[in-house]
Amino acid sequence: MNDLKYSVKRGTGARCTAASTKPSAADRLHRSGQGVSVIDNIEPPDSEAIIRTIAMPADTNPAGDIFGGWLMAQMDLAAGSAAARRARGRCATIAVDAMVFLRPVAVGDEVSLYAEIASVGRTSMKIHVEAWRRSRDSEERYKVTDATFTFVAIDAQGRPRDVPPPA
Amino acid sequence: MNDLKYSVKRGTGARCTAASTKPSAADRLHRSGQGVSVIDNIEPPDSEAIIRTIAMPADTNPAGDIFGGWLMAQMDLAAGSAAARRARGRCATIAVDAMVFLRPVAVGDEVSLYAEIASVGRTSMKIHVEAWRRSRDSEERYKVTDATFTFVAIDAQGRPRDVPPPA
Amino acid sequence: MNDLKYSVKRGTGARCTAASTKPSAADRLHRSGQGVSVIDNIEPPDSEAIIRTIAMPADTNPAGDIFGGWLMAQMDLAAGSAAARRARGRCATIAVDAMVFLRPVAVGDEVSLYAEIASVGRTSMKIHVEAWRRSRDSEERYKVTDATFTFVAIDAQGRPRDVPPPA
Amino acid sequence: MNDLKYSVKRGTGARCTAASTKPSAADRLHRSGQGVSVIDNIEPPDSEAIIRTIAMPADTNPAGDIFGGWLMAQMDLAAGSAAARRARGRCATIAVDAMVFLRPVAVGDEVSLYAEIASVGRTSMKIHVEAWRRSRDSEERYKVTDATFTFVAIDAQGRPRDVPPPA
Amino acid sequence: MNDLKYSVKRGTGARCTAASTKPSAADRLHRSGQGVSVIDNIEPPDSEAIIRTIAMPADTNPAGDIFGGWLMAQMDLAAGSAAARRARGRCATIAVDAMVFLRPVAVGDEVSLYAEIASVGRTSMKIHVEAWRRSRDSEERYKVTDATFTFVAIDAQGRPRDVPPPA
Amino acid sequence: MNDLKYSVKRGTGARCTAASTKPSAADRLHRSGQGVSVIDNIEPPDSEAIIRTIAMPADTNPAGDIFGGWLMAQMDLAAGSAAARRARGRCATIAVDAMVFLRPVAVGDEVSLYAEIASVGRTSMKIHVEAWRRSRDSEERYKVTDATFTFVAIDAQGRPRDVPPPA
Repeated sequence: MNDLKYSVKRGTGARCTAASTKPSAADRLHRSGQGVSVIDNIEPPDSEAIIRTIAMPADTNPAGDIFGGWLMAQMDLAAGSAAARRARGRCATIAVDAMVFLRPVAVGDEVSLYAEIASVGRTSMKIHVEAWRRSRDSEERYKVTDATFTFVAIDAQGRPRDVPPPA
Repeated sequence: MNDLKYSVKRGTGARCTAASTKPSAADRLHRSGQGVSVIDNIEPPDSEAIIRTIAMPADTNPAGDIFGGWLMAQMDLAAGSAAARRARGRCATIAVDAMVFLRPVAVGDEVSLYAEIASVGRTSMKIHVEAWRRSRDSEERYKVTDATFTFVAIDAQGRPRDVPPPA
Repeated sequence: MNDLKYSVKRGTGARCTAASTKPSAADRLHRSGQGVSVIDNIEPPDSEAIIRTIAMPADTNPAGDIFGGWLMAQMDLAAGSAAARRARGRCATIAVDAMVFLRPVAVGDEVSLYAEIASVGRTSMKIHVEAWRRSRDSEERYKVTDATFTFVAIDAQGRPRDVPPPA
Repeated sequence: MNDLKYSVKRGTGARCTAASTKPSAADRLHRSGQGVSVIDNIEPPDSEAIIRTIAMPADTNPAGDIFGGWLMAQMDLAAGSAAARRARGRCATIAVDAMVFLRPVAVGDEVSLYAEIASVGRTSMKIHVEAWRRSRDSEERYKVTDATFTFVAIDAQGRPRDVPPPA
Repeated sequence: MNDLKYSVKRGTGARCTAASTKPSAADRLHRSGQGVSVIDNIEPPDSEAIIRTIAMPADTNPAGDIFGGWLMAQMDLAAGSAAARRARGRCATIAVDAMVFLRPVAVGDEVSLYAEIASVGRTSMKIHVEAWRRSRDSEERYKVTDATFTFVAIDAQGRPRDVPPPA
Repeated sequence: MNDLKYSVKRGTGARCTAASTKPSAADRLHRSGQGVSVIDNIEPPDSEAIIRTIAMPADTNPAGDIFGGWLMAQMDLAAGSAAARRARGRCATIAVDAMVFLRPVAVGDEVSLYAEIASVGRTSMKIHVEAWRRSRDSEERYKVTDATFTFVAIDAQGRPRDVPPPA
C-alpha cells in the first residue's frame, strides 16, 4: 500500500470545529454539576435503530465487562452504515467528537445505535450517533453515550469523491 | 443487573475539560490550514508500545478497509491496560476526547498503541494514547490518531474506588 | 450487488414442500410456480427490528458468501432476545420451523430481524422471526427468510420454569 | 455437566407438530408422549463426522449457554461441506427442514456433525445432517438434533449450475 | 493470579526427550534428501478425526493465507480434547515437539486432526497429532504436519493431578 | 487450488536441523533437573515487542484457561511479522522448533512477543521468538516459552522467492 493520507481541506464540511451551537454530551453532562441526571429523561430517537445488537460474552474485557472500545466500534459501524447509505458507496471515518460514557453496558444488554446525518459537505458528512441500552429482561432503556462522526466518501483508490445528491 | 450509573462529580480528575495546555490532535491538524502536514514529522513516543497488533482480514469492514471503530477499540484496550496497571485492578472508560484519523490503516499493517498517564485524580485517570501504523513490508511509521481517555477505577460492584498511590 | 434471486423451479429436487395445513414459506414460494415473485411485495413488519446488523467479511464462507448458517444464528439470537424479554430471563431454543432462503445476503448488507411472539404456553413460547436485507448503498429491502422458533424458559439449573404473566 | 434433557411434554405450547406426511423429528419426539426417550437409543451414523468441533466460551450466549443458532450455523457448514464436495464447487443453502433440539450443548462439548446426501436433483441437493454431543470428559454420546438442508450448486455469478455426475 | 509455574520433574512422562525410536516428521522429511516425497504416500490414520473443521476467510493472515499459527492452535485443541478425555478433566499444554509444515492450507480446505495418546505418565500425557487437508471440492487428502504434545492434568487450582486409570 | 507443496531442499537455510550450538529451551529446562528454575532469571529481550496483546475472555478454552494453541498462533504471527518485514512481502511458516510452556497465561495478561532474525538463507529465514507475560495489575514479567520458526519467502503464486538484501 502506498501511504494514503486523508487530506481534509479548510472550508469543507469535514472541518470538525467544536463551535457547535447545541451543547455536546460532555457539556450537558458536566454543566449539570451533578453527574448525569439532566440527560436521563430523554427518550431514544424516533427513528429506527440503524444497528441493534446483543452484547455477547465474546465482547467482554478481562474484567468481564463490555468495554468502551467495543461500543465505540459499534458506533462507528452505525455511523458508517448511515454514511454508505447517504453517499451510496465506500466511506471512511476521519474524525469523531468527544464521548462520555454515562453508564456501563452488561453482557446480554440489547444495544441500539441511532444515526442521523447532521450535515453534508462536498465530500464529507457529519453523522450523529446515540447509543442506548436495555437489559435483556427489562423494558427500561438508558442512553449510554453519543457522538458525532465525520466520514468522507472515497472512491476505489481511497481518494475523496463527491457525495451524490440525496436519492 | 441493576442500572449502575457512572457518577462523575465536579472537581475530580475525571472532568474531561478541554482547556489542556498542549494543542489537541484536531487543533494541530486544523491550525495548519493545509491538512495534516504539520503533524507528520513527529516520531513515535519513546516508550514501548502498550499494544502492538497486526490488522487482520477479519478486522475489515464491508469495503475491505480496516474501519475506524476497530482502531478506537484497540485504543481503548491500550488505555485500559495502562489504567489497570496504574490502578492495580478493574477500571472502566468514562470518556474519550475527540479523535482525528489522519490516514487509513490497511490489512497487514502493524499498529502500535502508545499510552501515557496524563493525570491521576482520586478515582479517575486520564490516559493519552497515540496510534501509529507501519506497512508490513516497510520501515516507515506514520501516526494515525491520538486521544485522551478518562478511566475510573472500580471495585467488584462497579463502584468507583480510590486509585492507589503509585507502586 | 444486483438483487440476485434464487429461482427454484417446480419439479426440481429443491421443492421440499410438505403437506402442512397452513402454507409454509416454502409453499408460498413454490405455489407461485415462478420462483419468489409472490412474496416479494410484502413490506417488512411494522415493528422495530429486534436485531439489525451488517454482514461483515468475517462472516463469509469459503466461497466469499454470507452463509445460511450465519443467518440462522442471527435469527436464533433475535428470537432468543424476544424470548428473554417476554420470559424475563434465561431461555433455550427447543425447535425451529422449516426455512426457505429466498435470496442471498451479501457482505455489507444491512440485515434486519423482526420478531413477534406468536403464542405463549406454560413454559414455552413460539416466536416468529423475519429476516430482511438491504444493500448498503440502496433503499430497497428484500425479505430473505422467516421461521417460527420455539423457546422454553429455563431456571438456573436449566430446568423449565413458568413464563411469567406479561409485564 | 450432567446430561440435561429438554423434556417437552404433550400439550404445551412447544408441540409444534405439523401434519406432514412423513414424521418430522418433532413428530417422533412428541409421539413418544414422554419427551425424547424414543430417539435416544440411536447410535451416531457409521460415517465419519464431516465437522467435529469443540464448543468454546466464545460461542456462548448471554446466559453462558451454547445457543441454538451456533449449532444451526455448524449444521449449515457441515451440509455445505458435503454439498461443495458432491457438486465440486460453490453452493448456497436454499432451505432447511424443521429442527428439534433434544438437549443443550455445553461449553467444552465435542460436537460432531454427520452429513449424508439424501437426494440429488439437476441443480440442487438434499443433505441430511445429524448433530451429536459428547461431554469433554466422558464417553457417552447424545444426539442433539437433525435436519435436512437443501443446497443449490451455483456458478461464479451466483446462478444455478448443474450438479456434475458423481466422481 | 498468583504466578503459577509448571514444575515438570525428571523421570515423569512429561520429559519430552527427543530420543524417540521412530523418526520425527522433520527427520523423515529431511532424510529423504528430496523434500517431502517420502511422507506423501501415507494414508490418514484409521481412527476418526478428533477435530474436523473448515478453514474460513476469518482465519487468514494479511496475505490471505491460512497461517501456520491457526493450524498450531487447531492441533493444540485436538490434543487438548484427547487429553481431557483421557484424564477426565482439565489439562494444560506444557510442551510440543518440532513441526514441519509440508504444504499450505487454503481457505475452504477441510482440515482433519487425528490424535493418539502415545504415553501416559503419572500426571502427564504425550499425544501425537496429525493434520490433514482436503480441498473442498476434491477427494484427495494430504498430510500437512504432525507433532507430539505433552499435556499435564491439572486440578481446579491449576496444580498437577494424577491421570486416572483408563475408563 | 492446486496442491502446492513446500519443497525444502537440502542445503538451504530452511534445513531446520536440530544440531544447534546453543541449547534449546527444552534442553535448558530439563538439564536443570529441577524444573524451570534456571531460565527464570533472564530478562525480556532488549528489543521492542513485535506483538503485544491482552489475553481476552474470547481466547479461553473450555476450562477457562488461555490455551497453548492461542499462544502458538500469536508466536507464529510475531515471527511472520518479522519475516514479512525482512523479506519485504509474503512469507509462509514451514517449520517450528519444539516449545516448552513454562507457565500458564491468564485472562487479562499482557502477552509480549519478541522476535529476532536468527539466520537468513536464500529463500528462507529462521526467526527466534520469545513470549513473556505480565499480570494486568502487576509489574513482574515472566517468560512463558520460546521457539525458532522457519519461514520461506513466497511470491504471488506461493512459490519460494529470494529474500532480498537487507534494507
